[in-house]
Amino acid sequence: MSIIIRGGTVVNADRAFKADVLCFGDKIVAVGENLDAPASATVIDASGQYVMPGGIDPHTHMNLPFMGTVTADDFFTGTAAGLAGGTTTIIDFVIPSPQQSLMEAYHQWRGWAQKAAGDYTFHVAITWWDESVHRDMGTLVRDHGVNSFKHFMAYKNAIMADDETLVKSFRRCLELGAIPTVHAENGELVYQLQQDLIRQGLTGPSSHPLSRPPAVEAEAANRAIAIADVLHTPVYIVHVSCQESLEAITRARANGQRVYGEALAGHLIIDDSVYQSEDFEFAAAHVMSPPFRSKQHQAALWHGLQGGNLHTTATDHCTFCAEQKAAGKNDFSKIPNGCGGVEDRMAVIWDAGVNTGRLTPSEFVKVTSANAAQIFNIYPRKGLIAVGSDADIVVWDPQGTRTISAKTQHNKGGFNVFEGRTVKGIPSTTLAAGKIVWHQGELRAVEGAGRHIDRPAFKPVTAT
Amino acid sequence: MSIIIRGGTVVNADRAFKADVLCFGDKIVAVGENLDAPASATVIDASGQYVMPGGIDPHTHMNLPFMGTVTADDFFTGTAAGLAGGTTTIIDFVIPSPQQSLMEAYHQWRGWAQKAAGDYTFHVAITWWDESVHRDMGTLVRDHGVNSFKHFMAYKNAIMADDETLVKSFRRCLELGAIPTVHAENGELVYQLQQDLIRQGLTGPSSHPLSRPPAVEAEAANRAIAIADVLHTPVYIVHVSCQESLEAITRARANGQRVYGEALAGHLIIDDSVYQSEDFEFAAAHVMSPPFRSKQHQAALWHGLQGGNLHTTATDHCTFCAEQKAAGKNDFSKIPNGCGGVEDRMAVIWDAGVNTGRLTPSEFVKVTSANAAQIFNIYPRKGLIAVGSDADIVVWDPQGTRTISAKTQHNKGGFNVFEGRTVKGIPSTTLAAGKIVWHQGELRAVEGAGRHIDRPAFKPVTAT
Amino acid sequence: MSIIIRGGTVVNADRAFKADVLCFGDKIVAVGENLDAPASATVIDASGQYVMPGGIDPHTHMNLPFMGTVTADDFFTGTAAGLAGGTTTIIDFVIPSPQQSLMEAYHQWRGWAQKAAGDYTFHVAITWWDESVHRDMGTLVRDHGVNSFKHFMAYKNAIMADDETLVKSFRRCLELGAIPTVHAENGELVYQLQQDLIRQGLTGPSSHPLSRPPAVEAEAANRAIAIADVLHTPVYIVHVSCQESLEAITRARANGQRVYGEALAGHLIIDDSVYQSEDFEFAAAHVMSPPFRSKQHQAALWHGLQGGNLHTTATDHCTFCAEQKAAGKNDFSKIPNGCGGVEDRMAVIWDAGVNTGRLTPSEFVKVTSANAAQIFNIYPRKGLIAVGSDADIVVWDPQGTRTISAKTQHNKGGFNVFEGRTVKGIPSTTLAAGKIVWHQGELRAVEGAGRHIDRPAFKPVTAT
Amino acid sequence: MSIIIRGGTVVNADRAFKADVLCFGDKIVAVGENLDAPASATVIDASGQYVMPGGIDPHTHMNLPFMGTVTADDFFTGTAAGLAGGTTTIIDFVIPSPQQSLMEAYHQWRGWAQKAAGDYTFHVAITWWDESVHRDMGTLVRDHGVNSFKHFMAYKNAIMADDETLVKSFRRCLELGAIPTVHAENGELVYQLQQDLIRQGLTGPSSHPLSRPPAVEAEAANRAIAIADVLHTPVYIVHVSCQESLEAITRARANGQRVYGEALAGHLIIDDSVYQSEDFEFAAAHVMSPPFRSKQHQAALWHGLQGGNLHTTATDHCTFCAEQKAAGKNDFSKIPNGCGGVEDRMAVIWDAGVNTGRLTPSEFVKVTSANAAQIFNIYPRKGLIAVGSDADIVVWDPQGTRTISAKTQHNKGGFNVFEGRTVKGIPSTTLAAGKIVWHQGELRAVEGAGRHIDRPAFKPVTAT
Repeated sequence: MSIIIRGGTVVNADRAFKADVLCFGDKIVAVGENLDAPASATVIDASGQYVMPGGIDPHTHMNLPFMGTVTADDFFTGTAAGLAGGTTTIIDFVIPSPQQSLMEAYHQWRGWAQKAAGDYTFHVAITWWDESVHRDMGTLVRDHGVNSFKHFMAYKNAIMADDETLVKSFRRCLELGAIPTVHAENGELVYQLQQDLIRQGLTGPSSHPLSRPPAVEAEAANRAIAIADVLHTPVYIVHVSCQESLEAITRARANGQRVYGEALAGHLIIDDSVYQSEDFEFAAAHVMSPPFRSKQHQAALWHGLQGGNLHTTATDHCTFCAEQKAAGKNDFSKIPNGCGGVEDRMAVIWDAGVNTGRLTPSEFVKVTSANAAQIFNIYPRKGLIAVGSDADIVVWDPQGTRTISAKTQHNKGGFNVFEGRTVKGIPSTTLAAGKIVWHQGELRAVEGAGRHIDRPAFKPVTAT
Repeated sequence: MSIIIRGGTVVNADRAFKADVLCFGDKIVAVGENLDAPASATVIDASGQYVMPGGIDPHTHMNLPFMGTVTADDFFTGTAAGLAGGTTTIIDFVIPSPQQSLMEAYHQWRGWAQKAAGDYTFHVAITWWDESVHRDMGTLVRDHGVNSFKHFMAYKNAIMADDETLVKSFRRCLELGAIPTVHAENGELVYQLQQDLIRQGLTGPSSHPLSRPPAVEAEAANRAIAIADVLHTPVYIVHVSCQESLEAITRARANGQRVYGEALAGHLIIDDSVYQSEDFEFAAAHVMSPPFRSKQHQAALWHGLQGGNLHTTATDHCTFCAEQKAAGKNDFSKIPNGCGGVEDRMAVIWDAGVNTGRLTPSEFVKVTSANAAQIFNIYPRKGLIAVGSDADIVVWDPQGTRTISAKTQHNKGGFNVFEGRTVKGIPSTTLAAGKIVWHQGELRAVEGAGRHIDRPAFKPVTAT
Repeated sequence: MSIIIRGGTVVNADRAFKADVLCFGDKIVAVGENLDAPASATVIDASGQYVMPGGIDPHTHMNLPFMGTVTADDFFTGTAAGLAGGTTTIIDFVIPSPQQSLMEAYHQWRGWAQKAAGDYTFHVAITWWDESVHRDMGTLVRDHGVNSFKHFMAYKNAIMADDETLVKSFRRCLELGAIPTVHAENGELVYQLQQDLIRQGLTGPSSHPLSRPPAVEAEAANRAIAIADVLHTPVYIVHVSCQESLEAITRARANGQRVYGEALAGHLIIDDSVYQSEDFEFAAAHVMSPPFRSKQHQAALWHGLQGGNLHTTATDHCTFCAEQKAAGKNDFSKIPNGCGGVEDRMAVIWDAGVNTGRLTPSEFVKVTSANAAQIFNIYPRKGLIAVGSDADIVVWDPQGTRTISAKTQHNKGGFNVFEGRTVKGIPSTTLAAGKIVWHQGELRAVEGAGRHIDRPAFKPVTAT
Repeated sequence: MSIIIRGGTVVNADRAFKADVLCFGDKIVAVGENLDAPASATVIDASGQYVMPGGIDPHTHMNLPFMGTVTADDFFTGTAAGLAGGTTTIIDFVIPSPQQSLMEAYHQWRGWAQKAAGDYTFHVAITWWDESVHRDMGTLVRDHGVNSFKHFMAYKNAIMADDETLVKSFRRCLELGAIPTVHAENGELVYQLQQDLIRQGLTGPSSHPLSRPPAVEAEAANRAIAIADVLHTPVYIVHVSCQESLEAITRARANGQRVYGEALAGHLIIDDSVYQSEDFEFAAAHVMSPPFRSKQHQAALWHGLQGGNLHTTATDHCTFCAEQKAAGKNDFSKIPNGCGGVEDRMAVIWDAGVNTGRLTPSEFVKVTSANAAQIFNIYPRKGLIAVGSDADIVVWDPQGTRTISAKTQHNKGGFNVFEGRTVKGIPSTTLAAGKIVWHQGELRAVEGAGRHIDRPAFKPVTAT
């Protein structure tokens, strides 16, 4: 079955140009003006619209087991929400418990992901270390399409990786051709500040940001970057939320180091005033780590995207419903951390980024899709409108508007951090693997249609 | 006539991949594996080699009138030397004398360029200001394919633009959709330092770098960037030679400002020890502005290219022979400023950049071709191997070696700043506008074959 | 006549200690615990209070001729207000008109200053250049106790110094042992922005800050610092108002350059929301240059004082009454620039600096007195409580409070930018030259009692 | 017994002035021109010389137990060498073994120090943590004159403090009014790099600097500063050796944080070429941590002292003889770390700092004495020439010269890192506690004459 998208402006990371796009099966087979198409082809009219690579959200947590329960969204609802928003691929996380076999955890997650409606692939977290971890990292890279490993520098007494683990894992990544990524917060400081606040009776959600100030994040980012520098590995910092952390990245890049940074849609848009709400449910619904920051930090993050010191945008989509959040009613440190956003990321970044002149459409494609595809080595299969690429396409209507609300969203959790925000610029049609999965407000996600995307290890281009 | 380049690895700015490239007329008409080609097609075997967009040197001075004479290279010899080195397009400068009509100067240069063997296009310098300059800038942008204007912040009592001219011209650029560029050195300080040195009897070439220390360059770069910031224009800094100047760019980019920086091949490779030579001829042959710097600055410039704070590489090719340089025998400030390099840029940057691991091949394409094409708005016609792009192609042999020497170079001037350097990685074949102009060491440049390339004004992509 | 201050804590820049202070004539003659004093000595009880060097305000404009009129405060009312606030010395400015003889202007100002109630000394502005200026600078330094020269980088078409004047004057300062100071704003950009705003009909006071954004100030600061760097002179930046300007200073200091920065009490306390007032009189009363900035810049300035990158605090006291300010009713660029503050500086800085923990009392003495004395070479005569120093002393009651108001202030102008602010920490007694000039709310200033303080040229300490 | 120093220029941190200095007992009792002195007073002629506060070396290791032996210098030979060089006070380190009681270790060191010839006081290292450590820190501060605690971030599997210990100890310091200090090197990275190098067979001293690159130091400095920032404590970084580490300090200070940095005389003067020597004995003699760095880092350290981002100079005096160093003949990581310098610090810093124009004599006093006295709260008893201060005085002959050599030095160890360097500017006389201990090349140090100097806890000056 063929689909032809006619009359739009194709936007890739390097340029925008008028062209039709013809898809056959799950691939793009032609890009050009006035293309011929089979008579049977479904025609999508993209006149006055942009035709862009489907979004890649490089940071989600679907079906995440947590405190005897799991996140509200499983791989079906989560990826389906993504498709509604123009995101056609997610990179989720396999998070082994300390002492759990990496392979066992990996297969668990692969099992849960079977029901996904959109394509997916996995970072694997290194939460402990022994010889089996070292060995399994090799197996994952060679045989299972994993090329990135995640390290939590926070969450003391749980999944926190200490310096020894960081050093050993980063080095292992280097020999395997994988890229290390980090959640950068100093877990020791967070732990101490949490204890202090609770001791002082400051147990509400407004203590959450106080327990994780920017200095705590910047320290860890700087440390991870230093380790990468000394060991000659690249490094990718997830959810950079503050100016100080960004400055650590900027310094390293100015010194020629290969460091990449990710900004979350939430951190770009929402400020820390949400934690001051009297309404526990509202405040708790915003509890995630790192927390939302002041407007000054938001401005810095936009500058980071504009200047090329931040590279990707993600959501850290990790939804819990009000009942789950209530677990921290009397102790903010027990509120399950996480917010949604996979459905809204593309639209809020377009609205706040392109409509304001901060980003060109091509830069929008970079930070929502192409850069993630390049950094995690699935480019040009993903992240590009070109012959041979996957037919993951979003047709973007720059005049369309939508008012975001939990009432109308497709993901679970019953809350939306962007509630009430009206965005201009929305997906009119999403194609995933050559199928129309979202069209004019109608979601046609199919459970199980999503595919695991193998990501090959890096090798020097010169080795061809 | 068709040409097919078979079996190579195509390298674009975003990726490298195995493909054949088919050219017809002056265009690329197909890119893919195992392409069919007409029986009549000339076949170039690129196996084991890279197939890259022809180099763009965004900073040359061919046929530059100077002190009653002109540079050694005219547009034929200069562009021909470029072709021998894999550079298929140059951006040269129209430099009106103060009070000279811009249009008159522009037509002079266009006349001189008729004999060019490779494609060319022009920045136009704003060396004075009145209403006619304001008007002629409009004419040049609208009718003559000019989208960039150059401002010399040095050369007091000659072509130096003061702050008032900078402000008025930058603003005019903004309304025309042109990009301002600057030669960043504080002309007042240079002038004072020159007078001081001469007064002290320090008249030799070793005084040249003393009269233009890094602080002098950094001040001007910072000032141009501030003016651009206040007026909301982009700005391009030519020949960034020192760490402090680069830091001004890096700061601005980190604040989200659209600032671009250019590094010269010479500044990346050669250090300031050359000025200490006892041999006047040797030292004077290296006199250019900004001067060569210490190794610490070289390292910084490479970091700038790696981290994305510098974008293009150029040569400031501007050759004078020993007799011309001798004009400053008794006064370093009278030595004609300028060095060559258009033939060697690609090879020395490959050798010192890619062979050392500083740059990937794709990054090499960015900094030698694609970025210049994008910044000066001739992309994807130039700077890309893709269907529809100009058939300006360099087939790059990563195993080939060459020892650079004035004795074997194709340009004039009788001197080479890279003398004796053996590089690994050289062009085996160059195609310009679909013609083979360099093949296996044979130069087939044709006088007058080069074309003027119109560069359209910028407009917002969203205005489609 | 003797005065003994008993029972207080003496605070110098290097330490605080319990001691009595005995004054005789205009000097301090003893400092120690339980001092003997002549029976006739006047006793001031300082128990529970601090005994500190009288404040030095290194930036005031008394009796400034302006548009056919003069500032509201003359040298008597201005210095008297200073004494009421604990400031015993001012450094004012001689500002020759372009082409006016420096010596003539100097003697004018010396004449006006005869009526001063407190000690005073002068910076002399270099507003133009010829041989006579060069010569008169020498005369002023050698014969008239001037060791600092001021340069306005703003005020195009009036007193703006261009780069040539800056370079020549800085160099002249160096050979004379004087320190150059600058008002750092790029006059060309200010002029252009003013024209733009007026052209757009934005003629009210809210346009004032728009015409002088931080980038305009930072550019000039950076340029002055670069000139000083190249010429090997120190440099002092007056009224640093923004983060970017401070960063230029911080960078230079981190590179070992001798750069000093001054913050105004107003810039530390008041933010730019004042310009949004609907009341022209209120908004216009705040028009000064650089303008008040946002809170983020205030925080930066405090950090500058804390970290040693800013050194002095001043007021730029320059009062105009409402009738005078009304000259810019229809054109903000015609509003006479200037605000008061000489009476309030010490108290607002104590309140916002020491009471908040930002500064220790010793650091307060540094930034209100000792650093200015050292930088302008009148230390230890001024800026220190020690035997042999001038008996310029403020007894500071850390528990005392005062609500600042134009209604109760001692200076003229009828407006106070700190109106309504209640400060804790006020002078209970001020001694100037050994006389009680302020005591328990009573001002005993005597017209003509102030003395001109000669400031000797700098010479290397090693030259003793 | 009285001593009067006549005719010199007294240099304090804030100024230099002509004055005689009269000492009685162990105190300075008068400072002034043409002082009367008892007839019995010993007269020291200081004409043409400087009279400065005796040096304070805030970082020495005398009698340090190490690998079953101890450093070559005990408290007598070490402090005596200091006196010969103008240093009258040292701050040494009590270093408990992990699990050793702090009080027990403290008393051991106090016992060893009984034989000191000059005054001494102790930092106490926190090398492990439990409730007894918490309690003993209190005892040391309240009852034993300790106000600073040291933390080693390096030396994994030995005395390295992990983040938990850092956080707990810094916080304890805050409640006690003590200042935390850190040896900043990431112990995990050092350990890994050491293992790597040895695995590769790179076992010689030239591997020492490779195992401790600047990034390793900068990471730890940044981490300690972040912890201090979050916990609101000051922090003092010992032996800052590289630009990146200094930049971490500079950033923090520019943000208003109270961070102090110490530079070693060795790091200021000697570069890393020493490790390339073929002579094991020579290279090993230079093994200390952090290692000597390249000249670029030296320049940065001088800038740090000039700009006020570094505050003190020390030596880390820790001498081992050739036989001891030979323990690492086959494994560089087993070479006892340490070099001497206590005798030479003042002279090499004067020569390279004051003679070159980098520092004024007053700045020399700051960085060799006054700042250390203030930071460690023994000012004005130490660090100042004033009535009531200890009679610890160095009479400095700016014309005197000395060629440094192990052959003529007074300390043990048989090696001198400054060997062969001729310095201009040497102590002609040293007074310690009012006694002449060094005069015209004759050392009169007396075993046991040194005193333990109690350093009181900090309290807010406002609390008087």
